[in-house]
Amino acid sequence: VVETAVSGALIGKGNYRHFMLKEIYEQPAVIGDTLHSVLNPATQTITLPDLPFDWTDVPKITIGACGTASYAGMVAKYWFEGLARLPVEVDVGSELRYRSPPLPKNGLALFVSQSGETMDTLEALRYCKSEGQRILSVVNVPESTIARASDAVLLTQAGPEIGVASTKAFTTQLTILACLAIAAAKARGHLDRTREATLAAALSEVPGRAAEVLNHDDYIREIAQTVAEARDVFFMGRGSAYPIAMEGALKLKEISYIHAEGYAAGEMKHGPLALIEEDVPIVMIAPSGPLFEKTASNVQEMISRGGKVIFLSDGDGIAKMNKMAKPFASIELPKVDPFVAPILYTIPVQMLAYHTAVWKGTDVDQPRNLAKAVTVE
Amino acid sequence: VVETAVSGALIGKGNYRHFMLKEIYEQPAVIGDTLHSVLNPATQTITLPDLPFDWTDVPKITIGACGTASYAGMVAKYWFEGLARLPVEVDVGSELRYRSPPLPKNGLALFVSQSGETMDTLEALRYCKSEGQRILSVVNVPESTIARASDAVLLTQAGPEIGVASTKAFTTQLTILACLAIAAAKARGHLDRTREATLAAALSEVPGRAAEVLNHDDYIREIAQTVAEARDVFFMGRGSAYPIAMEGALKLKEISYIHAEGYAAGEMKHGPLALIEEDVPIVMIAPSGPLFEKTASNVQEMISRGGKVIFLSDGDGIAKMNKMAKPFASIELPKVDPFVAPILYTIPVQMLAYHTAVWKGTDVDQPRNLAKAVTVE
Repeated sequence: VVETAVSGALIGKGNYRHFMLKEIYEQPAVIGDTLHSVLNPATQTITLPDLPFDWTDVPKITIGACGTASYAGMVAKYWFEGLARLPVEVDVGSELRYRSPPLPKNGLALFVSQSGETMDTLEALRYCKSEGQRILSVVNVPESTIARASDAVLLTQAGPEIGVASTKAFTTQLTILACLAIAAAKARGHLDRTREATLAAALSEVPGRAAEVLNHDDYIREIAQTVAEARDVFFMGRGSAYPIAMEGALKLKEISYIHAEGYAAGEMKHGPLALIEEDVPIVMIAPSGPLFEKTASNVQEMISRGGKVIFLSDGDGIAKMNKMAKPFASIELPKVDPFVAPILYTIPVQMLAYHTAVWKGTDVDQPRNLAKAVTVE
Repeated sequence: VVETAVSGALIGKGNYRHFMLKEIYEQPAVIGDTLHSVLNPATQTITLPDLPFDWTDVPKITIGACGTASYAGMVAKYWFEGLARLPVEVDVGSELRYRSPPLPKNGLALFVSQSGETMDTLEALRYCKSEGQRILSVVNVPESTIARASDAVLLTQAGPEIGVASTKAFTTQLTILACLAIAAAKARGHLDRTREATLAAALSEVPGRAAEVLNHDDYIREIAQTVAEARDVFFMGRGSAYPIAMEGALKLKEISYIHAEGYAAGEMKHGPLALIEEDVPIVMIAPSGPLFEKTASNVQEMISRGGKVIFLSDGDGIAKMNKMAKPFASIELPKVDPFVAPILYTIPVQMLAYHTAVWKGTDVDQPRNLAKAVTVE
């Protein structure tokens, strides 16, 4: 018998109405715990456990994951490619395991799973192992099957996640993956000491910033009352905000049963724009950064079609947007380095999904048809 | 002044109620025209124009495209990786152009666009060119900007496409890409003469088989009456049927304004299954082949949740499915080599979208908010 090191105090719902809400609120703490395991705040450096491969001879990373974890993988692709100039392919477990992709010599295969028991992810891992890839996993359960089948494991310090809709597991996965991308970039000579310190400092600030975001609870609850009346909701973003749009849509689908869909903002005019009419809510993930102007121009187009845009940005972004067209609602997030924005912008979309589900009266912690860990095909 | 070589006869709507319907019906002919340009039926071999690179030293293909064309790229990924063991990355133009991905020496970049003027695709092309990639494009307009910016061009012989929702351009893109994958596989030593002949024969049969599929028009029209009443529709598939599910959903979105979404069938239980309840239509693309049993098991699950499954398979597949659970409707397609199934299975999803839009009374050829060629960001 292997016992998980979990204190009983963490298992109850405490004063929260649902596990999901408790888990959303735990994020500043568990992101902090996860950072403490890999980031030295005194030296502003990332210190990962020894990994059984050399980053400089990795030609490619293949990331396999399912559902929410696959969106963490998509964000990681932007990070690894942008920072470490290391090509990444992300695929969902159920496709990766069956399409037998050609994989390169010395390739790294990375698997992300909260439970560490996701069947399709495990089978994708086994395929990659049989093809000689080095296997790294990011899991929340150290004694899980995926962890045991890996050459090296990085643990998210999320603690037990009870709500079926993943929240703190996702943001701690992002946290670990961000640190991994920094380590890869440094080892490959693409990141100097100054930039490493800047990124480490930006990450160190995430727990505090995340706590600030939680202060928007009442306002998000109010916006959610409108979303709860919608039949269709779109979530959009560009760059690393695109996977967060996908995650926001998945969260809303899972617990409120509203048909939400995530899209790369630039793809809307290739079809989905036909669905935008009066009163369709559109959640736009738009942190300040190099893609902001393009995103704002997409927002303008949505507003001109009558769409109810819920605009997530920092103070600067909101001020710029208001000069172009007025969104239905704007949620102001702290201004942060664009590198860490995906972690922070996840929290309001989780809260929006949560409050929408509560307004609708659905079973937040145990949505219909879904299981917490998908251990079947 | 450069004139496009188009006969006037092709430009009218003829006896068809809409350009889109005419273009759907032209597919057996234009797939045939496209095949004739690259496939020798006497020798059962693929003969492409000389390409300015050697397939054996291409380490990777990067495919850039938008909307429907990006789904052609996704199918091509399955083909190139499966047949030619050549890694492929597919990205939408609006992301590819801005994320500045690391690209390998001697890499091939492939761009797919009906008009050859799609702005985001063109800018992605320019990025890849600046990074030293060899540029190949698949377009329908030989004098287009994308064609002129490419090192080599393969033309789809679709003729002018007037309906905003792309139909024959997509299936001819698939046809060219299938032939390209065969050529790559042969040059790389992964395809023997016998298998090439088998695949060429399967492709040669597509026009005739496509004409058979068109015979289901009345039945699909009847099914569409039910779909027209739905608020949400899901399209699903596994492997190369997954991009066809994406394309089916996009088609329905574009012209009927119904919120349709495409999904890899194996991903449903990671969230979207929560949306499946009584009377939600689910279009399942399920040709016979190695993934059939997994797909059928997903169908069984949808039916048990009350979903109205519209099941697309061949006679064998439908017989197997009926023993497990009875779909709401089954559309029987000819039994073909799984390699060419994506081309053929596209046609019924186009027809379903078309008839649904006609039942709803929307403007089929000129859907709201959309332009035929997206020459802006």
